[in-house]
Amino acid sequence: MQSAEPKFNKSSLLLALRRYSTVVSDMEQTILLPSLLRDVPSDELWNCEAAEESCGDLYDNYLTLKAIRNAVESGLISLDDHKTKNNAALHKTLEPLLDRDAEALFHFHLTGLFSVMRDLTQKTQTLTEKYKDIIGISN
Amino acid sequence: MQSAEPKFNKSSLLLALRRYSTVVSDMEQTILLPSLLRDVPSDELWNCEAAEESCGDLYDNYLTLKAIRNAVESGLISLDDHKTKNNAALHKTLEPLLDRDAEALFHFHLTGLFSVMRDLTQKTQTLTEKYKDIIGISN
Repeated sequence: MQSAEPKFNKSSLLLALRRYSTVVSDMEQTILLPSLLRDVPSDELWNCEAAEESCGDLYDNYLTLKAIRNAVESGLISLDDHKTKNNAALHKTLEPLLDRDAEALFHFHLTGLFSVMRDLTQKTQTLTEKYKDIIGISN
Repeated sequence: MQSAEPKFNKSSLLLALRRYSTVVSDMEQTILLPSLLRDVPSDELWNCEAAEESCGDLYDNYLTLKAIRNAVESGLISLDDHKTKNNAALHKTLEPLLDRDAEALFHFHLTGLFSVMRDLTQKTQTLTEKYKDIIGISN
């Protein structure tokens, strides 16, 4: 009999998701005064030019990274109207592509999610370092 | 101190990935003679009309579902040339969309992967039932 609880190795998506949760926990434990991040521009951290809206400040980024961690841990969150509209537009453009076989879609979303989790993990670590700079803690 | 090992609830992607691993294990334990699946057409199970290639038989589907389970558990597998080409074409078409912010991409790939895992779980269960029909086991 095989175990119902599969084992996942170090290169797996599950580990990437857990790693992200861990760095967000570290960020929360380090950033004791998140309000210090207000009005600090986030241009370097987020791809503001590509986004259709303002990136906000580092405080907004802090909230976003935490919300994504909650989505990772707690399941699929309901998106607010703006995000739903954005996602719907993305899906509409993709419709001809989404009619592919399940295996191709699996690989596409797996590699995509793996890549974006790496990106978000890096962003979380960068934000934590920026906070340390702001309060004058050097490594 | 927060635990470094996050808890995941029932609606999470991680649970969807684990559920898929479990149904593939069940499939393996049920299908003791996979060769009986050879030459059984898979048209109903897979979206053959949309795919650019032949779907093969149920035996091919069986191998595919196992390969995807290995990718889920063991990390990102290296795709063969054909799949790499397919995925590259998908990414090329998507390039303008992929230049979005990380949060939008995260939600897009999370909901996409969640959806495809549900689909693959259903396909695995259907294949297992088809095998039972072939060998004459009724539920």
